[in-house]
Amino acid sequence: MAGGILKFFLPKDRVFYTLFENAGANLETISKKLVLVVNESDYNKRAHLIKEMEELEHKNDLVTHEIFVELGKNFITPFDREDIHSLASALDDIADYIYAAAKKINFYKIDPTSDSGIQKTADQIEMAVLAVNQAVRELRNLKNTQKIVECVIKINSIENTADEIFDMSIERLFDSDVDAKELIKKREIYQTMETVTDKCEDAGNVIESIVVKYA
Amino acid sequence: MAGGILKFFLPKDRVFYTLFENAGANLETISKKLVLVVNESDYNKRAHLIKEMEELEHKNDLVTHEIFVELGKNFITPFDREDIHSLASALDDIADYIYAAAKKINFYKIDPTSDSGIQKTADQIEMAVLAVNQAVRELRNLKNTQKIVECVIKINSIENTADEIFDMSIERLFDSDVDAKELIKKREIYQTMETVTDKCEDAGNVIESIVVKYA
Amino acid sequence: MAGGILKFFLPKDRVFYTLFENAGANLETISKKLVLVVNESDYNKRAHLIKEMEELEHKNDLVTHEIFVELGKNFITPFDREDIHSLASALDDIADYIYAAAKKINFYKIDPTSDSGIQKTADQIEMAVLAVNQAVRELRNLKNTQKIVECVIKINSIENTADEIFDMSIERLFDSDVDAKELIKKREIYQTMETVTDKCEDAGNVIESIVVKYA
Repeated sequence: MAGGILKFFLPKDRVFYTLFENAGANLETISKKLVLVVNESDYNKRAHLIKEMEELEHKNDLVTHEIFVELGKNFITPFDREDIHSLASALDDIADYIYAAAKKINFYKIDPTSDSGIQKTADQIEMAVLAVNQAVRELRNLKNTQKIVECVIKINSIENTADEIFDMSIERLFDSDVDAKELIKKREIYQTMETVTDKCEDAGNVIESIVVKYA
Repeated sequence: MAGGILKFFLPKDRVFYTLFENAGANLETISKKLVLVVNESDYNKRAHLIKEMEELEHKNDLVTHEIFVELGKNFITPFDREDIHSLASALDDIADYIYAAAKKINFYKIDPTSDSGIQKTADQIEMAVLAVNQAVRELRNLKNTQKIVECVIKINSIENTADEIFDMSIERLFDSDVDAKELIKKREIYQTMETVTDKCEDAGNVIESIVVKYA
Repeated sequence: MAGGILKFFLPKDRVFYTLFENAGANLETISKKLVLVVNESDYNKRAHLIKEMEELEHKNDLVTHEIFVELGKNFITPFDREDIHSLASALDDIADYIYAAAKKINFYKIDPTSDSGIQKTADQIEMAVLAVNQAVRELRNLKNTQKIVECVIKINSIENTADEIFDMSIERLFDSDVDAKELIKKREIYQTMETVTDKCEDAGNVIESIVVKYA
């Protein structure tokens, strides 16, 4: 039957779509936890959420690692090897920075519920991650390029908004009467959160370059 | 006629030279604006210059994007795909950090005319960008490799000087009696400016590696 | 004789192993100097050691440069070109950050012998570099993959320990009564040192990906 020989040629490379989708779904979960963290005034309840985020971040590490292993084993890949590598790295970075931001909040004993900059940026992060995840899911079927392009535009627009929130938060911080130590702590949290949307933009850029080449 | 078949083989890849030259020329303009900014004591006049720099930075984004699109469309490229990618990224980074440095000066309400470290670094940045631009223009005709090598050596030497100015500025800052907030602001501006010359060095390194392979 | 034609096919690429081993051995020397620096309470004696580290760092630059030149000249390489590039960059970064950490200690006039965080991290750096060097030396003979995997696991474990020391040091710093300037200086030294173990992990990851593909 045709199946026999077809199976031989059938791209084992389908595995990449599944792995990217796993990473994307995981990112969605971890970004929702971040929103919970920044709306939680109780240190211990936040600590519990951050513990869960650590496990999700570790799960993302494993998926990234699996993508790299598959990349090493497969000569045929659905798109350029370098694009697969860059996309996996970007998704991994998103998870790393989301977790790092949450961790720093408790590490520095900052109450996020009294900082609208932190809360607004967490909302933007969730939106950006949703758009990244949607774009990732469209990769399997590159026919709907319009949809992917919309996601990429959305991610870039969210990144701009996050930049503005960041600038506003930093400006407010320097104009406030917080002492230097507090300022250094908050600035680091803002920067870590802002980096998440940068990494979402990186992921969007890779996906866009894949669309340009293969669609 | 020969033209028919020649055209078929004629590298469409010439487009890359033109795009890199556009980016280089644009960088020269933006670096000259930075020198104007750091010599301007009036906040509003600086704001006007920074607005112009934002447009130039955006123009660079578009050129970079176009290079990536052409990279996706062209199977034949004048040099290694990874080198084209790295050079485009480095030139884009130069524009980003020059604009970021100028923006931070007004954002943090720093008077650059009273800070010789900022002014001296802006001069080094302009010199480094001129050397990068010159090296980029030599790429089209790889015969004059001596000229390119001289540019790369010059960029590296400028980067060293910028490092020394940076160290001196930081040392002076910590020894001064400015408060911590002022120190954090100035240090961030110094760092952003110093990163520009690092990115010029990155661009020089890519150009050097192209010369090694193709000349 | 067979030698004639064999020589033609015999990989000139052996040069890469030698260059990587040179870099690895050099890293070991520079990391040992860092341990000496952090255990030396005399500023001038530290200055002397740091001067030696500068020369070692420069030696590493030259090896890295030579690897890139060979990469440009050789079409056949013992492993993927991108892996060679990434590994050379990671080893170069390790040297850069080790030297930068030592330089900052004297630049900021910090007494490392009174800071257990700095001293403990230097020990971790030395251990991580030893593991990197061991993994690099195993590359020439990819048969002993078990050994390489053990090195990579060790590097990752050391990186985790360095992270914990970093967190503890930062926490202690913010809880102490040091003024903001002192805090900024020490935090920068901690971060630079912690980055060294990150770069060791990067090197380990590249080596692991080489093993996955070729062993």
